[in-house]
Amino acid sequence: MVRIDVALVPQEIEARSLSGITAIVIDVLRASTTIACAISNGCDEVIPTTSVEEAVEISRAYARGDYLLCGERKGEKIEGFDLGNSPLEYTEDQVRGKKMIMTTSNGTGAIRAVKAADDVIVGSCWNLSAACGRAVSLGRDILVVCAGEARKFALEDAVCAGMLCERIASMVEADASDGCLAVRRLYAGFRDDIEAALACSEHGRHLARIGFAADIAAAAQVDRVDVVPVLHGGHIVRKFA
Amino acid sequence: MVRIDVALVPQEIEARSLSGITAIVIDVLRASTTIACAISNGCDEVIPTTSVEEAVEISRAYARGDYLLCGERKGEKIEGFDLGNSPLEYTEDQVRGKKMIMTTSNGTGAIRAVKAADDVIVGSCWNLSAACGRAVSLGRDILVVCAGEARKFALEDAVCAGMLCERIASMVEADASDGCLAVRRLYAGFRDDIEAALACSEHGRHLARIGFAADIAAAAQVDRVDVVPVLHGGHIVRKFA
Repeated sequence: MVRIDVALVPQEIEARSLSGITAIVIDVLRASTTIACAISNGCDEVIPTTSVEEAVEISRAYARGDYLLCGERKGEKIEGFDLGNSPLEYTEDQVRGKKMIMTTSNGTGAIRAVKAADDVIVGSCWNLSAACGRAVSLGRDILVVCAGEARKFALEDAVCAGMLCERIASMVEADASDGCLAVRRLYAGFRDDIEAALACSEHGRHLARIGFAADIAAAAQVDRVDVVPVLHGGHIVRKFA
Repeated sequence: MVRIDVALVPQEIEARSLSGITAIVIDVLRASTTIACAISNGCDEVIPTTSVEEAVEISRAYARGDYLLCGERKGEKIEGFDLGNSPLEYTEDQVRGKKMIMTTSNGTGAIRAVKAADDVIVGSCWNLSAACGRAVSLGRDILVVCAGEARKFALEDAVCAGMLCERIASMVEADASDGCLAVRRLYAGFRDDIEAALACSEHGRHLARIGFAADIAAAAQVDRVDVVPVLHGGHIVRKFA
């Protein structure tokens, strides 16, 4: 019996042991969607960083043509960076063969916060089936981590977590934590309109206000790509079967 | 317009400013229910403490007949203490005119964690109407805090929080956070059977296993008492209108 647990905010990670755990990190608006997109479009790897300064410092080790500085603060591209955090920017032309050095407000930090887990998968609506398939194939207990927004609960991540938990529970006999039960019920109420859940969330409304409404519609798409971004030695790479 | 926000786990408190806020702390299984019961039955005040050692230390300042040492660890009465954490123990005979020095695994710590709020109210199903009425009458933004279980999300507190949020939103025009929206949807699914939500939660199942099934049925009762326990100078006292 596999246990499926959910951290509704990243601070919940600290209350758990990550030993023997497969973690799936969700920041559906937008880092985990953007990472799934970039990895699918041939980006070599994503280096998640927690600050602008760290991202710039890491970039110094590489030739200018080999990397992209990526990320956002308050939803907007960081000044001087190559790309922001809209999945729509991460076309094959932009990212193929490149390293992405990335810092976002919530997602990249949440990914780093679970690095002690046995495996770390980046999950989103875009790679629902691929992420769940990989997590179940590993056979371990699963912790789905919602990146949240500024260390607060974010509706969109919880609804996406519920979608993943439902899929995982359909694939394997599972013991559900309270958090898992809650996000599954939450997801059930939005099942027929994931985009509505993303659009009505506080961060979704913020993104629409600053001009990123198209990202919300995009992020709600299910199984648009068939990739599993995984953390390997601190870098996010494509998991090949 | 009042803002209604919810901290789904106590760690979320740290992400917020408590200035200008009325906090309602919920630990429905069982500290906030027990406190409502004790205050209703004439207990003078409840001194919330975070450790057994602190509770014992504080008790030294009082004459033996004036106080009760109260609380639990893992659901069981603490060795040498007068009472555990079952609301059914807190009869008028036991508590009238007494100080309760109390330490529980989650609730008393969550109450202390919001002491910087302008007002702190202890909420539960038992005092739903009284707690919501008091919070709305204060006219400030409201933060409902779920005590959770061992710093993890607890279903029973979220469902009770949803009940309070729905009541508050029926009384005043309100702007709801993502957390508020989520607990209201969660509560809606259990509206006709709150006891079922409490009973199916992880902590509810634990309490039933160790012999406290009656507490679950009791804690699910709505508006059993008409009291508002409030924090005043670090002690929980009855708010008189």
